[in-house]
Amino acid sequence: MSSSSSENDQAREDNVLERIAQIVGQRNIPAGEVHIGDDAAVLGPFLGQVVVSTDVAVYGIHLDIKHFSLEDLGFKAVTSALSDLAAMGAHPRGLAVAVSAPPGTDLEQLHRGIALASEATGCPVIGGDLSSATDTSVAVSVFGEVPLGEAVLRSGAKDGDEIFVTGVLGRASAGLRLRRGGASLDNELVEAQRRPLARINEGIAARDSGVSAMMDLSDGIGLDLHRLATASKVGFALRHVPIADGATLQEAMSGGEDYELLITTSDPEKLIATFLERGLRAPISIGTIVLDSETRTLEGQPIEKLGWQHQL
Amino acid sequence: MSSSSSENDQAREDNVLERIAQIVGQRNIPAGEVHIGDDAAVLGPFLGQVVVSTDVAVYGIHLDIKHFSLEDLGFKAVTSALSDLAAMGAHPRGLAVAVSAPPGTDLEQLHRGIALASEATGCPVIGGDLSSATDTSVAVSVFGEVPLGEAVLRSGAKDGDEIFVTGVLGRASAGLRLRRGGASLDNELVEAQRRPLARINEGIAARDSGVSAMMDLSDGIGLDLHRLATASKVGFALRHVPIADGATLQEAMSGGEDYELLITTSDPEKLIATFLERGLRAPISIGTIVLDSETRTLEGQPIEKLGWQHQL
Repeated sequence: MSSSSSENDQAREDNVLERIAQIVGQRNIPAGEVHIGDDAAVLGPFLGQVVVSTDVAVYGIHLDIKHFSLEDLGFKAVTSALSDLAAMGAHPRGLAVAVSAPPGTDLEQLHRGIALASEATGCPVIGGDLSSATDTSVAVSVFGEVPLGEAVLRSGAKDGDEIFVTGVLGRASAGLRLRRGGASLDNELVEAQRRPLARINEGIAARDSGVSAMMDLSDGIGLDLHRLATASKVGFALRHVPIADGATLQEAMSGGEDYELLITTSDPEKLIATFLERGLRAPISIGTIVLDSETRTLEGQPIEKLGWQHQL
Repeated sequence: MSSSSSENDQAREDNVLERIAQIVGQRNIPAGEVHIGDDAAVLGPFLGQVVVSTDVAVYGIHLDIKHFSLEDLGFKAVTSALSDLAAMGAHPRGLAVAVSAPPGTDLEQLHRGIALASEATGCPVIGGDLSSATDTSVAVSVFGEVPLGEAVLRSGAKDGDEIFVTGVLGRASAGLRLRRGGASLDNELVEAQRRPLARINEGIAARDSGVSAMMDLSDGIGLDLHRLATASKVGFALRHVPIADGATLQEAMSGGEDYELLITTSDPEKLIATFLERGLRAPISIGTIVLDSETRTLEGQPIEKLGWQHQL
């Protein structure tokens, strides 16, 4: 970096990094681990396999600058990445953030959002990087663990499996519409848009109950269920889509960002029982996987009629 | 994402992701691993501890747009992140890239650079994300392994340790100057600037020989040696700095991006022998760690005289 930034920039970078480390850094670092401050972070041994994902969120592209804060951007960037771990049934062990922003950006506010999401899920911020740029963006990488061979893929759905979602859909999309229409930040649906949480415990419970396939609904069930079916080489017959109070069918189908999980299983009773034993809300059955990969229906009607075909 | 991007954008993203996966994806994925294509990647069990780092590179900030290509940007972003693993003595297992760029950017060229650096170090690209943005930037996260408790930190240098670098300094900085002055892309020093490689094997050899501290010289020895000394609460007395042919003292001292490693050890013979046994160029001894943390000299002169004090 030094070839294109001055020595004063370097000193300033060191200072800013120190203040940010205080915001996002953990109070109690496990013995033998190294988090922020060295060339790289060192995490205690992982059980089983290592699960990793990277997600980038750009202010103004992934989040409306007029209606949402830098703190919201940081929070949602972390949730979006952790949701990918949830979708594999992984237990999160750490996350790293690479932040780019124009000079003068309130980096502390942005990192407070990152810290809040980190604390809400118990996944420590173990490293990061900062750069100046024109855009404000946050790339979040997450690291988790699953028992050997137990990561839940999108590709395992089988004929006859029951399809579940972990909650009603469309809350975040409805919240975006309401916020743009003047709703306050503490409106429950606006809150669902600003501060969604990754369904970590639900993903682990689903994996423990032996589900056949799982993914997170980050782009909306209308797109993501097609992706799961294509990866699994199967079709689906949906009985209904559970629409959140205050949301429209369109918002429930094509609104992402609820971060609910989409699950298929051959043992629905075990799935529901595992959720209830752990104090989690029971997942909602919405339909059935079918053998014919061309069959993709909602209430018996080809789902193309709802206008999703061109998405694929 | 769907709340702020159209369905056509989603379809286009799926197509672009597929083409990019062909460029960066591995031919032979180890049994039991999942790379690109699911919610997250799954890597086979890691030996010992997990080492992770994230680095962001912005086109126009970290690399001069006039003189270097998108392929160079991708290549250097990967090297910069892998260099952090090298500096811990870690063995790389995988990397993930989050790319942001304006519509119309040649994403395939950028990812070819990523793929080239990945192949050059044998570290597979196991996942990624794409976003539109105003800037073109690449955030690279790397995942490696070290035996339990053997990661080499910056903070372990002790009084009397000998200080080494893995090669002559200033090549990349000289290359930048020459390129701006009209030198061609295949000039050896320009090549050092465009296509630096992380010193992975050197880092592992240093760790195996039991060195006391290590870091990569990404910001120049004039800044980075101070950082190592501060982290270790020691001082240093440099005898000399090995300047690359064609580079200036200033370029050797404050030019980063050579990605050579800075190493301290109480057993110099063992360090050199380990390098030579493995067919690596012998590291260069440049001075000694001293107890007094205020002592920071080059050839007996306080190093502040060279004008670095304000960097700290």
